[in-house]
Amino acid sequence: MKTTTTKHWLWSLPVVALLGLLSYGCSSNGELGSSAEAAQQVYVAPGEHDEFYGFFSGGYNGQLGVYGLPSGRHLFTIPVFSQAAVNGYGYSEETKAMFQTTDGFVPWGDAHHPELSQTNGETDGRWVFINENNTPRIARIGLDDFKTQEIIEIPNSAGNHASSFVTPNTEYVSAATRFSIPMDEEDLSNMDVSIDTYKENFKGTISFIKVNEEGKMNIDFQIMMPGFNYDLSHAGKGPSDGWSFFTSYNSEQANTLLEINASKNDKDFIAAINWEKAAEYAREGEGKVIPGKHYRNYIDHEEGGIAKSELIEEVRVLDPRELEGLVYFLPTPKSPHGVDVDPTGQYIVAGGKLSTVIPVHSFAKMEEAIANENFEGEVMGIPVLNYDSILHGEVQNPGLGPLHTEFDGNGYAYTTAFISSEIVKWDIEKTEVVDRIDVYYSPGHLMIPGGDSQNPDGKYLVALNKITKDRYLPTGPEMFHSAQLIDISGDKMKLLLDFPTEGEPHYAQGITADKVIKEQKRYYDLSENGHPRATTSEKQTRVERDGNEVHVYMTTIRSHFTPDNIEGIKVGDEVYFHVTNLEQDWDVPHGFAIKGANNAELLIMPGETLTLKWEPKKVGVFPFYCTDFCSALHQEMSGYIRVSPANSSTEITYGTGQ
Amino acid sequence: MKTTTTKHWLWSLPVVALLGLLSYGCSSNGELGSSAEAAQQVYVAPGEHDEFYGFFSGGYNGQLGVYGLPSGRHLFTIPVFSQAAVNGYGYSEETKAMFQTTDGFVPWGDAHHPELSQTNGETDGRWVFINENNTPRIARIGLDDFKTQEIIEIPNSAGNHASSFVTPNTEYVSAATRFSIPMDEEDLSNMDVSIDTYKENFKGTISFIKVNEEGKMNIDFQIMMPGFNYDLSHAGKGPSDGWSFFTSYNSEQANTLLEINASKNDKDFIAAINWEKAAEYAREGEGKVIPGKHYRNYIDHEEGGIAKSELIEEVRVLDPRELEGLVYFLPTPKSPHGVDVDPTGQYIVAGGKLSTVIPVHSFAKMEEAIANENFEGEVMGIPVLNYDSILHGEVQNPGLGPLHTEFDGNGYAYTTAFISSEIVKWDIEKTEVVDRIDVYYSPGHLMIPGGDSQNPDGKYLVALNKITKDRYLPTGPEMFHSAQLIDISGDKMKLLLDFPTEGEPHYAQGITADKVIKEQKRYYDLSENGHPRATTSEKQTRVERDGNEVHVYMTTIRSHFTPDNIEGIKVGDEVYFHVTNLEQDWDVPHGFAIKGANNAELLIMPGETLTLKWEPKKVGVFPFYCTDFCSALHQEMSGYIRVSPANSSTEITYGTGQ
Repeated sequence: MKTTTTKHWLWSLPVVALLGLLSYGCSSNGELGSSAEAAQQVYVAPGEHDEFYGFFSGGYNGQLGVYGLPSGRHLFTIPVFSQAAVNGYGYSEETKAMFQTTDGFVPWGDAHHPELSQTNGETDGRWVFINENNTPRIARIGLDDFKTQEIIEIPNSAGNHASSFVTPNTEYVSAATRFSIPMDEEDLSNMDVSIDTYKENFKGTISFIKVNEEGKMNIDFQIMMPGFNYDLSHAGKGPSDGWSFFTSYNSEQANTLLEINASKNDKDFIAAINWEKAAEYAREGEGKVIPGKHYRNYIDHEEGGIAKSELIEEVRVLDPRELEGLVYFLPTPKSPHGVDVDPTGQYIVAGGKLSTVIPVHSFAKMEEAIANENFEGEVMGIPVLNYDSILHGEVQNPGLGPLHTEFDGNGYAYTTAFISSEIVKWDIEKTEVVDRIDVYYSPGHLMIPGGDSQNPDGKYLVALNKITKDRYLPTGPEMFHSAQLIDISGDKMKLLLDFPTEGEPHYAQGITADKVIKEQKRYYDLSENGHPRATTSEKQTRVERDGNEVHVYMTTIRSHFTPDNIEGIKVGDEVYFHVTNLEQDWDVPHGFAIKGANNAELLIMPGETLTLKWEPKKVGVFPFYCTDFCSALHQEMSGYIRVSPANSSTEITYGTGQ
Repeated sequence: MKTTTTKHWLWSLPVVALLGLLSYGCSSNGELGSSAEAAQQVYVAPGEHDEFYGFFSGGYNGQLGVYGLPSGRHLFTIPVFSQAAVNGYGYSEETKAMFQTTDGFVPWGDAHHPELSQTNGETDGRWVFINENNTPRIARIGLDDFKTQEIIEIPNSAGNHASSFVTPNTEYVSAATRFSIPMDEEDLSNMDVSIDTYKENFKGTISFIKVNEEGKMNIDFQIMMPGFNYDLSHAGKGPSDGWSFFTSYNSEQANTLLEINASKNDKDFIAAINWEKAAEYAREGEGKVIPGKHYRNYIDHEEGGIAKSELIEEVRVLDPRELEGLVYFLPTPKSPHGVDVDPTGQYIVAGGKLSTVIPVHSFAKMEEAIANENFEGEVMGIPVLNYDSILHGEVQNPGLGPLHTEFDGNGYAYTTAFISSEIVKWDIEKTEVVDRIDVYYSPGHLMIPGGDSQNPDGKYLVALNKITKDRYLPTGPEMFHSAQLIDISGDKMKLLLDFPTEGEPHYAQGITADKVIKEQKRYYDLSENGHPRATTSEKQTRVERDGNEVHVYMTTIRSHFTPDNIEGIKVGDEVYFHVTNLEQDWDVPHGFAIKGANNAELLIMPGETLTLKWEPKKVGVFPFYCTDFCSALHQEMSGYIRVSPANSSTEITYGTGQ
């Protein structure tokens, strides 16, 4: 199999040259209104609040960034798929289970597409979902406390990219394999076969994860698919509610040098999935239930917020070769990336990254073509519809490398052009470009608050640019990615602000602040703390030995720990500090750190209990202290623990006495 | 030892009540100039750059944040003391050694005080130092590539808080024990004694770390000190160059309930250290060299940027009981926190957090008192100077809970008042308050670019507030801390902007952008890549088996990996992917991720080689892919690796052929 090739190099030269020219040619600031006016528009005076929350994927940092708009200020980062030193997420005993997978403890994830929950096709401010691409998972974050509540693993998948898009009433979040893998037809298990048997053996799956009223997720069914690469998705809405659309590339089914070999076909496919029918099939017991081990990890609020892992053994699989009307293929030029459904639900827009047009499919025409069986062929039992019969129109001159589209609710669509570094505004009915603006540089996704829902808020657009270069003071070879805020309230787009974003924001979602639930928590109610090792008053604090395990039941309140002097610990012990923060007020966390801990500190919110495991390896007296400057006497908030030799006979003593 | 007490509760009530009243009473936005004017002042138009770099400690996240001023934009985070999922720092094979300590692998740190290197008392833009409080360490970050270059451990210390402040020519960075511990007088080893023998056995140390021209750190000497808590520090300058000043609290030597028991004495001490004399003693071989194991971890640039660990066995200790003229104590009211030396080097200002005045010591008077032996007594051989004899003056009505002071270079000092939530501007010569401004809420440190050097840039001041509450859209119980930008160019301070800061910015440093070295790296030169497992061309790529170790020598360039199909790997193998990024252009990192890795991805800068260890546990074909959207065909940048059963006879094959 060992060969080398240089062909791809020559092939990609024009693209590289174009990219270079276009990126560097744009030295002006584009369509910037009066700078003074822009300054006013983005300024949020001290004491005032931003109008919108922006939830930005952290990409390869695995987390979810929270930004205020229009200021572009980085308000918070919610730890999701990666360990977070900042608060001990993924290090503390209570949170470790969030990273349980069938591959073991996976402390990192590649976060991609945040998606707000919806009711009646509108964002409702209950939850944000976000997918993990590398070890296929979907997380649900609660907007009551801005914490990750649940992470579910997706079996029979590799590369969970076309995820986590929701249906209009959050009935489902969907997921699909970006990378097909060899699957045994019987049980979809990953097979030990040669990679060059790709065309014969490799398959994909598309998964629908049911979301119940409390937000609990479970995989309702998976649909077996041809071995393409499934890239992005969006659910239908209005007339197209009940359907979901998934782009695919590599319909060539190449397994090597995809930059050349998966770029050959003039058209790849959008898979139109009738999820309503699929759900009906599933309810009726169609398809087959096969082994499909996967974990569902969740915060158990009944037990004081401890993360639990549940192993689920099986999954239901539907096969389009056996079940009619499940999937149709919409031919779409060329290597399509994004697929977006307009607010009316009538039009399905693809961003064909190597295409010279933006194709717009008509849902009504698609239904008609299905009814008339206007098929060009089929792949793995899936009918391929006739391109011309389903086309609403093609947007000409859309910029080079069109990727993603969002909508303003006023009849216009906005598409990012990666290679020509611009955003193109076009009329959906007429499929005609009406405005364009340069962005810096190479936008991937873009975001309009509600811009992929039935009710967009067409005031601002955020371009999520993949290349930063000279936009900010330089920070060496590595830098944050860059976003740009654009005013889309008038006929002409106006560039307002550049703001950096942590990690790689693939996609973002925005929502007016007043829609985020008003019952947001400011602290946890101590009287509802169900943690089995909580100490909800100083009187309950104690230190207990159980063999070589020592449990320290500790409290924090401004500005002391109870107990703050502990003796009788021995080298070789496993010491568990169960620290309860007794505060019942907003913004009074306490931290807990001790020298030599081979994990992180704890950052304990008011009313919460967290546990740090410490294995002392040396004799001596070790201080512990509060890591969060909590009060005027924060520096005094500390204590000591004495560690004696393993064979010492010192008994446990503890206290706060003088 | 087990007792309980409620006294402290009653005691702290007035403080709590005051804090509450003051925080909530300030509902207006304070001294805010015209909002439109402020908007103009902080707005950095797209394509333009901020005037200042701000380096903000991440506090309990362990990292160093980079912010642009005046925009307040979060430009970057430099991983220092904690694992960073974003680029695999602390997870990749090349970076793990940065976390080596005598307590083993410590993946988290509590970052406190960033300090820019200085030449002739001015910030010079070469390096930023920052201390770790929990496992005592100091890091040096290079401003050529914004990466952590070196981390040195401090032995015989617990709680490294009064650190990492530099002398005017960066001869030394200093460090001190925040928490004293029982030290054996012979070798300073941590003793297994009862905590209530504090007064008898507990000692502190102050350490001076020599910095050579390349930035390499080594501990030149430690000074043994009485068992107080050493809190903050600053070096002298101008006339006081050669001296360093360290605040202490808990001169009561209490070991429990410090919020009460360490708040009794009317005055604690500032320790004035004659480091020039100490260095001379050290050069002359004075003091004793004792065992003091500690690690120095550093990036070996000769070996392709691989982190190495060096174990150092000994340390020199000076004892003020034996060596005259080393240390003097300056009595200072009350539980002093910050200590700051004005730009002229004449005045030493303390922030006595329970003091009703700001005491200003005169360096000239201090020298005179020493010459005249105007002593009140001594502690552990250290003369205590007479308070009145060294006092320049006391600033009356400085706000409640004064903590830290910086200077504008125009004769004014600015002090944060934590409890009354304000910043107080005062005339240094007259020790009189001239202006005050409310901040929101509870400022700890403050920062003026160059504000602790001999040449401050008195344009902006940043208040680093410890309490956030309602300043931004809420993010549940946990939130970022808040900074506020204040215009100090006129007579009256003007509040311009609130901006959130990640983690807990204890302290920050600012510098005009043009002072940060112009030789900043945009990428690493491939021809200088000395990594022993680098593959600097696609022709060198290969896969080699060595027992159950498999080494994959891989390259990345837009938009493919070489090799991209690998077979012959077996369950139970240890697979090392050594990935070299062949790009030689600014801002073209590539990422590398593979399903089931129990660490993080790699984010590889142009010209760099990084290594990910992967232990496949399942049979099948697994995709790997680029995690950073690098090009129009980024989605195609992927490959497959086949894993066969442990007993399989499949041989290694690899390639990019068709």
